[in-house]
Amino acid sequence: MIATQPAAARIRWLAAPSSAAWLVQALAHPDLVLIDHAHCERKAAGAALQLMFRYPGDEQLAAVLSPLAREELEHFERVLALLQRRGLVLRPLAAPSYGSELNKAVRRQEPQRMLDAFLVAGLIEARSHERMGLLAEHAPDLELRQLYGDLLASEARHFGLYWLLCEQRWPRPVVIQRLEELAALESQCLAGSLASDEGVRMHSPGVELR
Amino acid sequence: MIATQPAAARIRWLAAPSSAAWLVQALAHPDLVLIDHAHCERKAAGAALQLMFRYPGDEQLAAVLSPLAREELEHFERVLALLQRRGLVLRPLAAPSYGSELNKAVRRQEPQRMLDAFLVAGLIEARSHERMGLLAEHAPDLELRQLYGDLLASEARHFGLYWLLCEQRWPRPVVIQRLEELAALESQCLAGSLASDEGVRMHSPGVELR
Repeated sequence: MIATQPAAARIRWLAAPSSAAWLVQALAHPDLVLIDHAHCERKAAGAALQLMFRYPGDEQLAAVLSPLAREELEHFERVLALLQRRGLVLRPLAAPSYGSELNKAVRRQEPQRMLDAFLVAGLIEARSHERMGLLAEHAPDLELRQLYGDLLASEARHFGLYWLLCEQRWPRPVVIQRLEELAALESQCLAGSLASDEGVRMHSPGVELR
Repeated sequence: MIATQPAAARIRWLAAPSSAAWLVQALAHPDLVLIDHAHCERKAAGAALQLMFRYPGDEQLAAVLSPLAREELEHFERVLALLQRRGLVLRPLAAPSYGSELNKAVRRQEPQRMLDAFLVAGLIEARSHERMGLLAEHAPDLELRQLYGDLLASEARHFGLYWLLCEQRWPRPVVIQRLEELAALESQCLAGSLASDEGVRMHSPGVELR
């Protein structure tokens, strides 16, 4: 019996916890999840840099996002090194619809666009944190438990950084209201039927809607 | 009398050295060049990451470009901190045509596209190295001399990394021939009349064509 609730309960903002079914599937395909995780770290760095490029004169933003992007790249390199030690190839993987669905919800006009972009990036970090927590707790492979255990604290901190960027720019009630809307959407994005085994990803479907 | 030749001579692959006129103009506008330099470091990180995204399954490439992007971001943060200590604002600056002109020369079909992209990125690093060398030698401001002196070695190393990526993938004569073509173009891009004083940049016009 896998208890997802304890880890999920630590993620205050996620609208629904990941399901035991996702965890079972992810544990059955550790190599695939690891390769996907490498791509996730790369994409998280890309997302942070993209925001820096969108607002090139925003120093406060740059001072937060540049170190964040560096840290994501460090994690990418760590996962890449592990893949190589295990003889696994960093092959491109079809992405689940999760990221593109969330990005569709980003409003197109400023300043809402910036708020939504921060919150979406933060929610993706929060989900990564939750799922890495499950893998850190339940993976039978000690090295993977350590990897995910080491990295998950950063994911939570990154959520906190995006939250802080919001709080510096908008009144807290505005941030909370939009975060709740987007968090509901984020869980909806993971609410479909489980992916095929080949389609299991760090952000493939599998939540327990309440 | 400013002697540009000694520094330029160290940059084996540049087809023409920067002119004394560029240096005089850059030294007259240290704040502007510093702000532009911050943007250059950010853009160099973006270019490295963009290549990683274009070839997401290329591990050898990722293992080189991810640390390179991290280092560019570290430099960005260092320059940003200096701007802030000096009360300078990281305002967006109009970019000179240099980067876009060079990128137009990148052939569209693979594998030539990859070779050209590496060489263009490398040549931009080489020019940065040369010009930072001039600033490190001639800036009247000690702190700027130290900054540029510290960073210029990285720029040369980055040129070397792009060169290595080419050598791992193409026969040396192919790399050298294309590098010579693109290096000639790179100098042509800087051969127009000097920018206005407000338009002086790390990569604004100013070379001595032979």
